Amino acid sequence: MSQSRSTLQFQSSQSLEIDQSQVKQFLQEIETDPMGGWLNLPQDYGRSEFKRIKKTAQAIQTNSEYLVCIGIGGSYLGHRAVIDALQPQSPTKVLYAGNSLSPRELDNLFAKLDDKDFSINVISKSGTTTEPAIAFRFLKEKLFARYGDRAASRIYATTDASFGALHNEAVQNNYSRFTVPNNIGGRYSVLTAVGLLPLAVSGVDIDQLMSGAARELLALRSSLDHDTLDSLPAVQYAYMRHSLYQSGLETEVFATFEPCLREFGEWWKQLFGESEGKQHQGILPTSVVYTTGLHSLGQYLQDGRRNIFETMLEFTTASGPDFQIPSIANNPDGLGYLEGMKLSDINQKALQATVDAHRNGGIPVLEIISPELDIINLGRLIYFFELACALSAKLSGVNPFDQPGVEDYKTRMFELLGRTS
Amino acid sequence: MSQSRSTLQFQSSQSLEIDQSQVKQFLQEIETDPMGGWLNLPQDYGRSEFKRIKKTAQAIQTNSEYLVCIGIGGSYLGHRAVIDALQPQSPTKVLYAGNSLSPRELDNLFAKLDDKDFSINVISKSGTTTEPAIAFRFLKEKLFARYGDRAASRIYATTDASFGALHNEAVQNNYSRFTVPNNIGGRYSVLTAVGLLPLAVSGVDIDQLMSGAARELLALRSSLDHDTLDSLPAVQYAYMRHSLYQSGLETEVFATFEPCLREFGEWWKQLFGESEGKQHQGILPTSVVYTTGLHSLGQYLQDGRRNIFETMLEFTTASGPDFQIPSIANNPDGLGYLEGMKLSDINQKALQATVDAHRNGGIPVLEIISPELDIINLGRLIYFFELACALSAKLSGVNPFDQPGVEDYKTRMFELLGRTS
Repeated sequence: MSQSRSTLQFQSSQSLEIDQSQVKQFLQEIETDPMGGWLNLPQDYGRSEFKRIKKTAQAIQTNSEYLVCIGIGGSYLGHRAVIDALQPQSPTKVLYAGNSLSPRELDNLFAKLDDKDFSINVISKSGTTTEPAIAFRFLKEKLFARYGDRAASRIYATTDASFGALHNEAVQNNYSRFTVPNNIGGRYSVLTAVGLLPLAVSGVDIDQLMSGAARELLALRSSLDHDTLDSLPAVQYAYMRHSLYQSGLETEVFATFEPCLREFGEWWKQLFGESEGKQHQGILPTSVVYTTGLHSLGQYLQDGRRNIFETMLEFTTASGPDFQIPSIANNPDGLGYLEGMKLSDINQKALQATVDAHRNGGIPVLEIISPELDIINLGRLIYFFELACALSAKLSGVNPFDQPGVEDYKTRMFELLGRTS
Repeated sequence: MSQSRSTLQFQSSQSLEIDQSQVKQFLQEIETDPMGGWLNLPQDYGRSEFKRIKKTAQAIQTNSEYLVCIGIGGSYLGHRAVIDALQPQSPTKVLYAGNSLSPRELDNLFAKLDDKDFSINVISKSGTTTEPAIAFRFLKEKLFARYGDRAASRIYATTDASFGALHNEAVQNNYSRFTVPNNIGGRYSVLTAVGLLPLAVSGVDIDQLMSGAARELLALRSSLDHDTLDSLPAVQYAYMRHSLYQSGLETEVFATFEPCLREFGEWWKQLFGESEGKQHQGILPTSVVYTTGLHSLGQYLQDGRRNIFETMLEFTTASGPDFQIPSIANNPDGLGYLEGMKLSDINQKALQATVDAHRNGGIPVLEIISPELDIINLGRLIYFFELACALSAKLSGVNPFDQPGVEDYKTRMFELLGRTS
């Protein structure tokens, strides 16, 4: 029991067949893919850069009230998800820029930076992606106006190790540099410097995060060794969602009962949507937070079109704060029967009720059950979803690591903006 | 030109047939529906309560750093959307409670309230909905511990005018009361006291908001009088989305290029999802913010399954802040061709590029084009979407104003929690 509660679990009410030799084949393909570097990352990561990230984070915490992270897509969704989920303590708060072209957003950011000490972490493989590059121009201007010659020491560039516009600028101007690995794409990059520097600055224990991911990698290796891949939760999840897709269910709703996981849902959507949504196929990923979503998308899930399945991220052990429902004279609200119960228990009952109600309404519900919501298990879940996503894309016969469709709006935008080269 | 720019417009690349007599019939049905009170609300609202809302808001602003709004679903999504979109100035910040059962959320809220003066606006028709009723218990306890006998004067109850648990409690304890009208359901209620009190407290000019909505109501009446309902944008939008649904497109993506409209997308999803998602039919509503979403869901929209259409909310005139791309020596990022351009213009080009790219990729794009993003036009857009949603549900033959599916998880939850009555 205590053993099973300390690992991730997968549950569904559908039965499933998994071809272990196919899984092995996929794993080999991923391991040898030029973009498969995330697979062994939890063990293979560079220790010296990791150490430097922790040291740099401490330095930023001593001189900056804000760290402005400039990045779009995979360059910010992962660390934002983890920071929001854990809400760690730190003298330095992470802010975001360069993920839109909205002047309002930039104005709001500038208002926050007024009279506050800040540093910049610009995160871009190339340095030429329009949104972050524009934001970097504005923020550099502000930084140099504020700090003059010392400004460059407040710029941290996470970029290609050897090439590209941002790499070159960083070398010429002596910015501290961290590496976007060549063998890991944006949406699989949260456990590289892309995510780790902002996470460390915001107070997340990145050793624990990596050790959580490493546990899932070890579980994968162990099930490979013991020919039990068919009982590995990430494999089960990948095969089940593919099987549901094959049976005509075209939309997956990622649901949690913890509002602090809303941004984790955004990370999940990019991971699966960009990996699978190509060649005119793929499951449409969408997300919802309960119980508020039960008073919104809940009606649709209960009674709308039956072309949907739901993936519920659950936690067995309530960690962190909890509260007992207080007693009140005369029971004005009819909640007397709940007095003395723990709020966490009520939340769990709401979860069970929702799983039952949706299954009863004809929506298959897949349950991913984690031990408590903490750093280690978030590390696990990140690796879990990356692995499941890559396998799932392989099952559909698409490349899990490219994103050809993202180029189309860029090309058209460059034309409209008059770029000539 | 200036005339056309001052109204909402609807554009699409599909052709459309609208049966005006059918629209008239639907409008009559809505007007006489027991829950159709929102239709004439922008003109028919009670002036004396409206005045009292403004006065109460001023009082709260003088004695509270926070107003905690307790409510779920339609009891908070509307005002949160407007507050987030406008980010108005006020001495009092609105916080939210009672929209989940998460102890973490409650703990975060309590941490914010520590040592700060606050008041409570509890928003519930019945007063017995589990989530808000639980939150109200906790927050009352905190309020009474802080303010003793004076606590009741800091509680504002927005509830049924004559009946129900919260109504009775408010009368007995002398809380200030505001009305949830009997003829307007939660998801259509943002322009009632449900939304107006929090909005006024947060610094939104609610006169302007109502006048924006009234302009759309006047446009509706005028097109009724002139037999031009088929050129009314809200009617066109309703019929177009229904026609796309009939042709097999099952998911609608609500998209904007303003991150401050993210919560507006949540309001939109509840409005359409709860109104249409029943009897095993309805368009699945989902939402995205660009340009960040172009590096996430964008890949799916460009290249994934072709069972989707997109509704883009656009603004013609850039109001508010703007910035020129600064010049930098040596053009390190290759953005030299943008120097001196306004950020708002670049955002507009990105929007045009996205519309073109998605249409080219086989996704029908519906454009709802508003004059600048301000209070008046948000008022307009609220009414526009309410009207379009009700007509659209009528076209599908479902009741736009009920939500039978929301009961199912509640019933099961009560069983699991051991409620006997």
